[in-house]
Amino acid sequence: MSTTKKQSSNLKEKAGISPPEITNVSAIDQIKKNRRLQPSSTELIDGILSGNRTALSRSITLIESTNLEHAEKANEVINGCLPYANKSIRIGITGVPGVGKSTFIEAFGSFLTQIGKKVAVLAVDPSSSLSHGSILGDKTRMEELVKDENAFIRPSASGETLGGVARKTRESIILCEAAGFDTIIIETVGVGQSETAVHSMVDFFLLLKISGAGDELQGIKRGIMEMADAIVINKADGDNIKKANQAKLEFNRALHLFPPKKSNWQPKVTTCSAITKDGVSEIWDTISSYFEMTNETGFFLEKRKEQNHFWMMETINEQLKLNFYNQPEIISQLEQNKKAVQNDEISPFAAAQKLLALYFNKGSK
Amino acid sequence: MSTTKKQSSNLKEKAGISPPEITNVSAIDQIKKNRRLQPSSTELIDGILSGNRTALSRSITLIESTNLEHAEKANEVINGCLPYANKSIRIGITGVPGVGKSTFIEAFGSFLTQIGKKVAVLAVDPSSSLSHGSILGDKTRMEELVKDENAFIRPSASGETLGGVARKTRESIILCEAAGFDTIIIETVGVGQSETAVHSMVDFFLLLKISGAGDELQGIKRGIMEMADAIVINKADGDNIKKANQAKLEFNRALHLFPPKKSNWQPKVTTCSAITKDGVSEIWDTISSYFEMTNETGFFLEKRKEQNHFWMMETINEQLKLNFYNQPEIISQLEQNKKAVQNDEISPFAAAQKLLALYFNKGSK
Repeated sequence: MSTTKKQSSNLKEKAGISPPEITNVSAIDQIKKNRRLQPSSTELIDGILSGNRTALSRSITLIESTNLEHAEKANEVINGCLPYANKSIRIGITGVPGVGKSTFIEAFGSFLTQIGKKVAVLAVDPSSSLSHGSILGDKTRMEELVKDENAFIRPSASGETLGGVARKTRESIILCEAAGFDTIIIETVGVGQSETAVHSMVDFFLLLKISGAGDELQGIKRGIMEMADAIVINKADGDNIKKANQAKLEFNRALHLFPPKKSNWQPKVTTCSAITKDGVSEIWDTISSYFEMTNETGFFLEKRKEQNHFWMMETINEQLKLNFYNQPEIISQLEQNKKAVQNDEISPFAAAQKLLALYFNKGSK
Repeated sequence: MSTTKKQSSNLKEKAGISPPEITNVSAIDQIKKNRRLQPSSTELIDGILSGNRTALSRSITLIESTNLEHAEKANEVINGCLPYANKSIRIGITGVPGVGKSTFIEAFGSFLTQIGKKVAVLAVDPSSSLSHGSILGDKTRMEELVKDENAFIRPSASGETLGGVARKTRESIILCEAAGFDTIIIETVGVGQSETAVHSMVDFFLLLKISGAGDELQGIKRGIMEMADAIVINKADGDNIKKANQAKLEFNRALHLFPPKKSNWQPKVTTCSAITKDGVSEIWDTISSYFEMTNETGFFLEKRKEQNHFWMMETINEQLKLNFYNQPEIISQLEQNKKAVQNDEISPFAAAQKLLALYFNKGSK
């Protein structure tokens, strides 16, 4: 029957041509040689501390690697860089797609390098593994900044989980700081959980908005506005200026409804045009006064210590869960317990206890 | 030396009097007899299903017990009750101290029993182990309701963790429902995390407020207002009526700034007086229309399924953490790692990895 099928199929493969020969035979040798020449962690640390971008890029690649050997090397590099890190302002920038994040970062980043700052732009985008790097991936949208020798742009790491992507970005911050970048911008998408992750790794959190048709506050995920230290209404140029000013009023009113922040900082609302550059320098003024105020009160350092603590605990919790949910006996039992729980055949707690007993009894054997 | 100390000490114990003899010798026998008479789980289930309050109270006590044998029996009772549970509306009520929660619940609960409902009032208050039951502990504040044969009032379970207290309350809901209570009120304090826990075990979330001096929205913890399906401005009586109506306007405006809820329900703001009973029946109308709408869209059942799932996962996560943080080798290493992380001597991730290695290596031995 299969023969008949083969004969009658219009889809059968025709005899193809042979694959082309490797045109440059020496390429293989070159690749092998390069592999042997992988720099040691000490060389990478030295490179980073002297501001070498290649060393920085290579080290971030190690951080992003899933290879265990790379992970170990990455840890060595991070620990070597730690004493030289932390001297920076870390700024988180978020906003829904269409708000003009890339052009804003291009304008803001270029302004910063012009006033003598060294700017590193990183990203947290857990969806990037699907979309092949939706943020910062298309570097052509930051034409000016990408050529700027005082700027360093790196697309989001890809990964299965937000936790993984966030960890990689957070470790990359340390390396960028050790390489002398004093202003770290972390871009993220306006989709909720990634904001929380970014918020917990930056000093200042900026929400980018555009003026809409009256419903200025729609489309902001719950809680994101409460995290913002500043709201910037972008695209405030041409016919938009009036609407942007109206939006500014509305946001200001809304922000005053929230309880005071732990930092005692009253979030600011400003307008800005990434095209005309109007309002760009004011954003930096706002960030600078935040920095001054929180340095004076001690909140700045306190928050960083808290963030360090948070990330240690987060990593532990995430790994504990990963270990649990990757056990074959849990995988095989989880779904049916989920269903039973949803259909009230077993209480959520009894189901949890059953699975936990399975996990811990196996471990103690 | 120790002899000298004893002689010179003013704190040495004087010869005391003997403990009084047990006046009623038969009491011990009685206690022993009662212990033998502890009802079986089947008897408790039968009792609960026939609406016996003693059986219900005893079973909740088993849920609250830290004794392992009790916990097993409690699980049997819960699983026996599960098929008869879930036929209720679960209402969460929160508000900062001073807002009049007890008097409100007294008025609202009495209204409900008058229209033929059977009302169970439970509480989630993790601080109750310190304050010996701050909410619902003082039952005299619900004088009427506590005597009402169609109402059942139970103070918050006490416990070390919010997770533990919340679990106990959530399991108690099942028993109350199986005992025929069709309206479950869960009271909590306005302090943040316990709201989230209560929100995840109720169908409808009600925030109780009073009108203040202009700054109506101050003092609400971040996120709590976003969880509310209704905001009730209490103490709207006498001179307060005007201010309460003003507060109503302000809250309404603020609520419209939030993005639409997953349920598509637009939160309502009403005023109410627990003294004059004005506005009490309107609150029930609001809840009823919520119930109707979400039943029609299917959101009601969907949310309950999600909550069941949430509690299973929460329990697993909580137990995984508990197990980790109770290991002697983690306890002995955690603090120094925390300090090193906060002082940037080690990266949060490296510290986490160190602790995790300690935990898992020991486990696999």
